[in-house]
Amino acid sequence: MGSIDRRGLPVDLSHHINTKSKARHPSPLKDIIKFMNYDGMVSLAGGLPHPSLFPLEQVNFECLKPSASVSKDANGEAADLMRLTAGRGSSPGDLDLTQFLQYGSGSGNRELIELSKDLTERVHAPPCEYDCILHPGNTNAWSKVVGMLCEDDNFVIVEEFTYPSAQALWIPLGIKAVPVPADADGILSNKLRDLLINWDSKTAGAKRPRVLYLVSVGSNPTGVTISAQRRREIYDISVEFDLIIVEDDPYYFLQYPGYQTPSSENGCQAKTTDEFVKTLIPSFLSMDTQGRVIRLESFSKTLFPGLRLGYFIANPVFIERLLRATEVETQDPAGLSQAFTLSLLRRWGIDGYLTWLQNLQLQYRTRRDWLLDAFYSNFTVLAAENSPLVETQGLVACVKNKDDVLRPVFSFVDPGAGMFVWSKFYFGGVDRYTEIESESLDDPEQTFANELWKAWATELVLLTPGSYYHPWQGADKVTTKARGAEPRTAHFRFSFATPTEAQIHAGIVRVRKVIGKYWG
Amino acid sequence: MGSIDRRGLPVDLSHHINTKSKARHPSPLKDIIKFMNYDGMVSLAGGLPHPSLFPLEQVNFECLKPSASVSKDANGEAADLMRLTAGRGSSPGDLDLTQFLQYGSGSGNRELIELSKDLTERVHAPPCEYDCILHPGNTNAWSKVVGMLCEDDNFVIVEEFTYPSAQALWIPLGIKAVPVPADADGILSNKLRDLLINWDSKTAGAKRPRVLYLVSVGSNPTGVTISAQRRREIYDISVEFDLIIVEDDPYYFLQYPGYQTPSSENGCQAKTTDEFVKTLIPSFLSMDTQGRVIRLESFSKTLFPGLRLGYFIANPVFIERLLRATEVETQDPAGLSQAFTLSLLRRWGIDGYLTWLQNLQLQYRTRRDWLLDAFYSNFTVLAAENSPLVETQGLVACVKNKDDVLRPVFSFVDPGAGMFVWSKFYFGGVDRYTEIESESLDDPEQTFANELWKAWATELVLLTPGSYYHPWQGADKVTTKARGAEPRTAHFRFSFATPTEAQIHAGIVRVRKVIGKYWG
Repeated sequence: MGSIDRRGLPVDLSHHINTKSKARHPSPLKDIIKFMNYDGMVSLAGGLPHPSLFPLEQVNFECLKPSASVSKDANGEAADLMRLTAGRGSSPGDLDLTQFLQYGSGSGNRELIELSKDLTERVHAPPCEYDCILHPGNTNAWSKVVGMLCEDDNFVIVEEFTYPSAQALWIPLGIKAVPVPADADGILSNKLRDLLINWDSKTAGAKRPRVLYLVSVGSNPTGVTISAQRRREIYDISVEFDLIIVEDDPYYFLQYPGYQTPSSENGCQAKTTDEFVKTLIPSFLSMDTQGRVIRLESFSKTLFPGLRLGYFIANPVFIERLLRATEVETQDPAGLSQAFTLSLLRRWGIDGYLTWLQNLQLQYRTRRDWLLDAFYSNFTVLAAENSPLVETQGLVACVKNKDDVLRPVFSFVDPGAGMFVWSKFYFGGVDRYTEIESESLDDPEQTFANELWKAWATELVLLTPGSYYHPWQGADKVTTKARGAEPRTAHFRFSFATPTEAQIHAGIVRVRKVIGKYWG
Repeated sequence: MGSIDRRGLPVDLSHHINTKSKARHPSPLKDIIKFMNYDGMVSLAGGLPHPSLFPLEQVNFECLKPSASVSKDANGEAADLMRLTAGRGSSPGDLDLTQFLQYGSGSGNRELIELSKDLTERVHAPPCEYDCILHPGNTNAWSKVVGMLCEDDNFVIVEEFTYPSAQALWIPLGIKAVPVPADADGILSNKLRDLLINWDSKTAGAKRPRVLYLVSVGSNPTGVTISAQRRREIYDISVEFDLIIVEDDPYYFLQYPGYQTPSSENGCQAKTTDEFVKTLIPSFLSMDTQGRVIRLESFSKTLFPGLRLGYFIANPVFIERLLRATEVETQDPAGLSQAFTLSLLRRWGIDGYLTWLQNLQLQYRTRRDWLLDAFYSNFTVLAAENSPLVETQGLVACVKNKDDVLRPVFSFVDPGAGMFVWSKFYFGGVDRYTEIESESLDDPEQTFANELWKAWATELVLLTPGSYYHPWQGADKVTTKARGAEPRTAHFRFSFATPTEAQIHAGIVRVRKVIGKYWG
């Protein structure tokens, strides 16, 4: 439980727990555990392997210091390292490794949970009582949340474009997405409200949805961060319509100031960790007075993906059910992942971790700038209201055609967070597209988008097709028209997470070359 | 796939894959991956975090050598250690750590899978084509197998007494157990056959079961290992009735020669690894000519539980579906667990690992002997046929009553494997039990078993109540009578995995003391 006792109590949300999750019972073996601690007790009850028979005696981790620059150049510049040790012996200061080699209780290491709570207090200060347990990565965390909240054939509310693996999990359960349109501030609260008010269970064949899944900061794929005002509206709607908000937030600490051109003029002065935390948009958790936000936190995204470690922050009623599922579905996250993360947090402290995150933010922001710099060098970028496409938001990348007329190619929003730029391409007036459209195909937009993608791949640059991120509303609704999308448009996602600056610039030159052929 | 090309092909078993698992599709992002390897390709498609931004630079593991005695005494006798290194640099011989820090493909590290296959060939030489992928521990592996094979409300065939967590997973799905009675050689094949022949879908409310779940070596709780002859009969029945055998086998390498009294006369000469492998009972996998055995292998049980690592061995049709579930439910097992295990297997080699397992077998066998030694010191132990309980198998622990007459207290089977001794207590003629029975309670056996358990706990010794291991056949069948169990009996499980020799002896003296009060 959170440590501030003036915190509010959650409202009763136990009716959100589905039939299967309600049917989970604690293992009867748990009843014995309390007896095991009696003085002088001999237990012939437990089935734990004997720790003397584990071959691992000591682990040393060599890690970067959080105050050092986290980026090393390709020449392998010497990094500022520190050494963390977890051993089976009892050297003072070292982490005792044995506890991480043995079976755990399911919730994860107690000290690591307490540090996770300290971090939660520092960053979110939730107004309502909550609890935390560890999980083996946000993929598995979301799987457990779906297993707790969704009945088969339910609907889940998602953003207009959403992370495909989050859907792939529940498609086999017969669960369907209800997408809500978004603008540059995130999903539209009035559209969300309309959807809920007008829900017709008979037509939909299922009850009004009760779960809202959001990657609310630097959404994958759209890069959009939901604004503070919009968040308050969405939270109020969740109270009004009894929704549970699942806040899957791996990019929370990767929030950037707006892009300035040229990007070299962007300030990048280090802040104190308190100042850094203040720059971050308030999470749904921070405004959750009722216990209806389930937040999925990731160490995998901030330290390294192979860690497969994160934690749930939620109403104790939900945490208890998630723990029951953990006991039979996964058990504790891997011991070495826990030992590494605890060693690191002990040494770095919460402040050191926040310093690390601030550096990470700077590094990915620099990468964002590289990509937008490349857009500005290769296209004429106009604010939407000054472009030939006044009805859109954000920025529009244009090229001049053979008659020297500026034509819009794609619009995008400066991503205020995350790793992606989402672009909407405009096919109207492109000769090749018009030709395809005249062939009366089912989905000319998708046909042309595929052709464009292949032309880029031939020029040795890969983007991710927007079709990957369409919410799954059932097998029959896949065409652009059936989705109700704007005619003569399609989306692509640009990622700036992995390539170097030189690769990004070369890539955008290639993107431009193909565009020149079609739009020029 | 296995490397021997004269291996048989599996029969078509795709009809065993349930509706939900069939509905899983590969991520569309996978289509892009093949393009990423083109020479000179710039990918703005992937969303992988940049490896320069991972704080872990190097890991050193200090491990026991497999040839050393794996047991260290409580005084911390110096162990024979070796050091394994996984680094981000390129020191020759070291493991390249970066691949374990990044996202994986879901199947796990390729080299570790190949080593798992080498081990599979060495130990099981499966006659039919198979494939392997890694999993994050047998708990999760079983969860994925249930997710692939079982429809809600199906029945699963299990041993008469079975591991409660394996059931706790599927109870919420409405799945029920069909227990098959067993003797000292494992479940009775004629009873299994009768069950399948006489299955009445109408009465049962579900189709004939198609999944047989077995911990076939050193079963938890019974300690029983299914004999080779019985295995062949069971496998033939699985072909006849189209069953999938799920072979959950964490104790496979902990197979012991029969207990001799006094145990000091037990030979314990080290064998070559080939000789060691020959002593092991043939697995179901080794006789699987059709691809209907799914084997769950555990590194967690043989190295350390916190590792959360093992692998599936199965028909490629099943492996492909298990991989689809892995992509959305868990992703790869934790990177540090994979890096540790690969480093260890590279250094130890398959032979070194088998040497480690042989030592592990010796250590747990010694613990088994400590427990049976304590039985022999505290009770008169008779072969069943020479005891007052001729109708049972194995051994009977007896005490003399006040009239100096030998009375049977509990029967047990010398566990030829694993970590447990399963005991059946006989309450007939115990005054206190007769008193309870006369009170016409619902379940006098369970009432007395609870009283006995509490009396032991008061004397500071804990056993595990047998009731924990009753198959779950629905909420209404819980009494001894309703289960069709032998009247006036109840079971308890003794574990010899964790306590020291002194603790085991002290524990059994306390068990004996309480027995003296009731049976004396």
